[in-house]
Amino acid sequence: MKRFAVVGHRAATSGTFSLNDLPGSAGRMDILCRCVNSSFFLSHDLRRDVECYLILYGEPDPPKTILFSGSTLRHLSPDERSSAALIKKALSIPCGDEFRESTPGVSVRRGGLARFLSEIPFAVLDEAGEDIRSASTLPDAYLLSDHQNFAGEEEEMLEGLERYSVGPLSLHADHTITVLLNEMDRRESGWRS
Amino acid sequence: MKRFAVVGHRAATSGTFSLNDLPGSAGRMDILCRCVNSSFFLSHDLRRDVECYLILYGEPDPPKTILFSGSTLRHLSPDERSSAALIKKALSIPCGDEFRESTPGVSVRRGGLARFLSEIPFAVLDEAGEDIRSASTLPDAYLLSDHQNFAGEEEEMLEGLERYSVGPLSLHADHTITVLLNEMDRRESGWRS
Repeated sequence: MKRFAVVGHRAATSGTFSLNDLPGSAGRMDILCRCVNSSFFLSHDLRRDVECYLILYGEPDPPKTILFSGSTLRHLSPDERSSAALIKKALSIPCGDEFRESTPGVSVRRGGLARFLSEIPFAVLDEAGEDIRSASTLPDAYLLSDHQNFAGEEEEMLEGLERYSVGPLSLHADHTITVLLNEMDRRESGWRS
Repeated sequence: MKRFAVVGHRAATSGTFSLNDLPGSAGRMDILCRCVNSSFFLSHDLRRDVECYLILYGEPDPPKTILFSGSTLRHLSPDERSSAALIKKALSIPCGDEFRESTPGVSVRRGGLARFLSEIPFAVLDEAGEDIRSASTLPDAYLLSDHQNFAGEEEEMLEGLERYSVGPLSLHADHTITVLLNEMDRRESGWRS
């Protein structure tokens, strides 16, 4: 299973946001929607072996974590509005400490980064990290951030985690996921190696 | 200059489409919007050395070509709705045989693939093509298609063009652009080579 987790520092935590204003009042939800897209979409197919976690820290009810599970995911189209609509539904149901499904393959629970990192060992994307192309093996799980860097307290939680880089320039989180998956695809298939 | 051109087989050619229905009545305009995003956006920066061409074949007035020029581009945000709004403006001005600017860095003209290929030698993305990682040099210009493959008459126009592949799986056009740019970034910077 490949896993991508993206921290949305200002991303809304109730289902009342407008699908017409994802960057603004929804707290840069557009970034998280594109991360969902890049985690799952192949040409005319979905990646069934991927999980994408959105860790939401915006108002009014943070933190919440939304899980998209490729193995059971339905009703997802590639456009931002489609994933935003599924996020909206997830944020509209009562939310407890365990994941609860809102639509097929999408579920939500309370909790943020601290709980999350205690459960799954994630690697971190960092321009100073090891090049994903030269690493002898690659981790299955990666933590990324939205348009804001990890803040002081978050960085403390990330201390000691493995760090990887996808290239010489700093990319958006969704582009980083695309480049990571391309490297994983090549390794898994032994493509032209 | 790096160039990406994407054919939108059903993409709208008037500015009357709704920003709330990019995949539907705008003819999968969402795909083209994501291609604009992946062509230009870096983390907190824009790629100024890129041009992105959208070749639109949908109703009511095909074909039209929209050019996004990184060197002068303004008012573009990463979300689909933002590039769609600039496309809508471009499709709302009178359109002649030469590119005419609608907003800074965005211009539009009449004409489709045939005229286009007569002006710039594009390479084509093709799963059976040469691996971009092993090519000794890479072209600067690439032609991609939206959710539909190139059709019979189009394929004839593409005969004899160089063909490249980005990996073992068939990707969306915007993801392909991201992987291409990562390879170009690495080569240009001599990153960890």
